[in-house]
Amino acid sequence: MKSELSSVKAIVFDTFGTVVDWRSSIADDLSTWGARQGIRAEWLALVDAWRGRYEPQKDRVRKGEIAWTNIDDLHLDALRSLLPEFGLSRLTEDQILHVNRVWHRLNGWPDAVQGLQRLKKRFVIGPLSNGNVALLVNMAKHAGLPWDAIFSCEHFQRYKPHPDTYLGVCRQLYLAPGEVMMCAAHNYDLAAARSLGLKTAFVPRPTEYGPLQTTDLAPEQDWDVVAADLQSLASQMNA
Amino acid sequence: MKSELSSVKAIVFDTFGTVVDWRSSIADDLSTWGARQGIRAEWLALVDAWRGRYEPQKDRVRKGEIAWTNIDDLHLDALRSLLPEFGLSRLTEDQILHVNRVWHRLNGWPDAVQGLQRLKKRFVIGPLSNGNVALLVNMAKHAGLPWDAIFSCEHFQRYKPHPDTYLGVCRQLYLAPGEVMMCAAHNYDLAAARSLGLKTAFVPRPTEYGPLQTTDLAPEQDWDVVAADLQSLASQMNA
Repeated sequence: MKSELSSVKAIVFDTFGTVVDWRSSIADDLSTWGARQGIRAEWLALVDAWRGRYEPQKDRVRKGEIAWTNIDDLHLDALRSLLPEFGLSRLTEDQILHVNRVWHRLNGWPDAVQGLQRLKKRFVIGPLSNGNVALLVNMAKHAGLPWDAIFSCEHFQRYKPHPDTYLGVCRQLYLAPGEVMMCAAHNYDLAAARSLGLKTAFVPRPTEYGPLQTTDLAPEQDWDVVAADLQSLASQMNA
Repeated sequence: MKSELSSVKAIVFDTFGTVVDWRSSIADDLSTWGARQGIRAEWLALVDAWRGRYEPQKDRVRKGEIAWTNIDDLHLDALRSLLPEFGLSRLTEDQILHVNRVWHRLNGWPDAVQGLQRLKKRFVIGPLSNGNVALLVNMAKHAGLPWDAIFSCEHFQRYKPHPDTYLGVCRQLYLAPGEVMMCAAHNYDLAAARSLGLKTAFVPRPTEYGPLQTTDLAPEQDWDVVAADLQSLASQMNA
């Protein structure tokens, strides 16, 4: 481990894309469910369109155009608006809620659970995610993610990259920013964390958005750690 | 399991006294540490006096006499005021902070870890404690408590038995009060939870305050579950 990282006591993780593979998980879950229900749809295209609404929706909260709204409710709003385009207008309310809850049923990347189990032995670990508490708790149980604590933007009522989120973790853990590391597959997240004094770990996930992904394929700054996956991060952090 | 408990999806626990044995843990920790440091004191008497300040201190926050203050800071304030009486006026600042942090190093009652591990397989489990987040996270790592999420009164900026604490858990988990069970060794905590619609489990800890304890020796209402310990609670909840 680099000597300047010896101060790190806690590591917090972006979840969607960094720890869990939302695109494949959702496509697989809904395809299986749809087949059982006799509902056919272009599920992968739905996932991509759904995720496409994610940043614009959060931007409305970030800019104060709408009051604080949890991700579960932003997802539901976007899902309802997409149903006609995907031939799903006849879903019942229970079916819509089941589909919306698919974000609670995501699977970790193959390295995630073992990497986190190793890191947990040496560090306090938790998500620092735009996902709401219920989503992150249910996701952890579904995927077997061994978090010590859940840090949700719901706690801070701000979406990343607002400073209150990163500094809120430091404050709650009684740690200085330099004692906390942010791990993400997204350069913007790490840039915000670094600007506040947190340590940074980049874990590229070049197929998060599918085989044609063009963003976040490489580090855009000299992050403190660049690791191929969470097992490699554990090794580099001597965990 | 009683049929009216089949709706329960999450169980939250009072920690000090219910899950961890603070009195013995602190006396043992400080006695060992004191012996190494060459510091002699009536440690058990200090613990009892320190804990005696706990409710009056929280009452000052509850009544709005002082602004929201975390338990770590209330503990530190009380500790400083007790040092002269216990012949500890010459502790250094580092030593005082180490002693104050003893509340992060508490051990579970003998049944706690295994009982929680069983309950975790069937339910979302977490503390709902007046302890602050850092204290609860460090305590969980020290004692091996396998929480799914940390619910701290720090999140809600209210101490129990304020309704915001119990209802805050329900809201964050997207659960109705009847889907959440409060487990505690203290009747007042369960009375508050029940009044808001939560299910209740009483686990008496007749030696929490030592062999001469006179309070909370028995259930004061017909709580949904009365269990000798957390292993018994797991059995009664079919976990």
